Amino acid sequence: MRYGIAIFPSKTLQDIANSYRKRYDSHYAKIPPHLTLKESFHTTEEEIRQHVKYLRDAAANAKPFPLEVYKFSSFYPVTNTIYLKVKENEILTELQKRLNSGPFAQEAKYSFVPHITIGQNLESAECADVYSRLKLEAIHHTETADRFSLLYQLENGTWTVYETFLLGGAEND
Amino acid sequence: MRYGIAIFPSKTLQDIANSYRKRYDSHYAKIPPHLTLKESFHTTEEEIRQHVKYLRDAAANAKPFPLEVYKFSSFYPVTNTIYLKVKENEILTELQKRLNSGPFAQEAKYSFVPHITIGQNLESAECADVYSRLKLEAIHHTETADRFSLLYQLENGTWTVYETFLLGGAEND
Repeated sequence: MRYGIAIFPSKTLQDIANSYRKRYDSHYAKIPPHLTLKESFHTTEEEIRQHVKYLRDAAANAKPFPLEVYKFSSFYPVTNTIYLKVKENEILTELQKRLNSGPFAQEAKYSFVPHITIGQNLESAECADVYSRLKLEAIHHTETADRFSLLYQLENGTWTVYETFLLGGAEND
Repeated sequence: MRYGIAIFPSKTLQDIANSYRKRYDSHYAKIPPHLTLKESFHTTEEEIRQHVKYLRDAAANAKPFPLEVYKFSSFYPVTNTIYLKVKENEILTELQKRLNSGPFAQEAKYSFVPHITIGQNLESAECADVYSRLKLEAIHHTETADRFSLLYQLENGTWTVYETFLLGGAEND
């Protein structure tokens, strides 16, 4: 099975992201807006069950942190992706590292750039055009991220949440 | 915000359900296949945060139970809905009751019939036609349900998981 780990931001931020995604993101109908913590990987349900404690510990060892979106950005021309850039944060960086280590070690295709995708698989011309307009727009939104989700992919390409993990202390809010 | 509570079955069962849903279910792109434990309801994030402990306790007081799908059925002509019928189970019944009591009390439109919808909002003629064919087909699938999810709805009608709750003891598996 194919799994992935992501943070789903608040409804407010997801609605903002979706207002762009519905036009520009080929994955719009597959998964809600998210910040990817771990790229999709193949493993068995049995393996996941064995290592879910590692994820609980990673969550418990982190703390809720400010998730701050502060501008539009793009990976173009590496990939034709447009995203909301998320401010780097030590807790987030450390969490992402843990979720790609130990039993979840995975070769990284790219270095970690925290972001929420709003457009992908666009034609190069459209990507350049849309991004040239969006980068002139202001966006600023801060909220508290206090959880992440482990997901698996169905045969039709959509994703289902297997389990949410609350960052240390969030449970006692 | 609009919330709901559901059980997402295994990938296997979701893939089976989706093979029908893609043709017959108007909500196919809005939410993965699920067993509804609590109909959608309006409340605030603040209220949810205050009462999430009630949901954790409801989960802790339940136990993983066999989720057994054993036939196709329909609510037609009350609603033009076709579903996979889920065998009644004391743990499931009790859990559903708790999730509709206390701070989550809600007037029930219908009595609880555990099911996984595979078709809805069909024209009456199509509903009758599809159901007359499906009810001749055999289906039998049993698995263990060990969690439920609290979800909220985005502006575009899709649902995001807010938190998963493991049924008593599941965490130690």
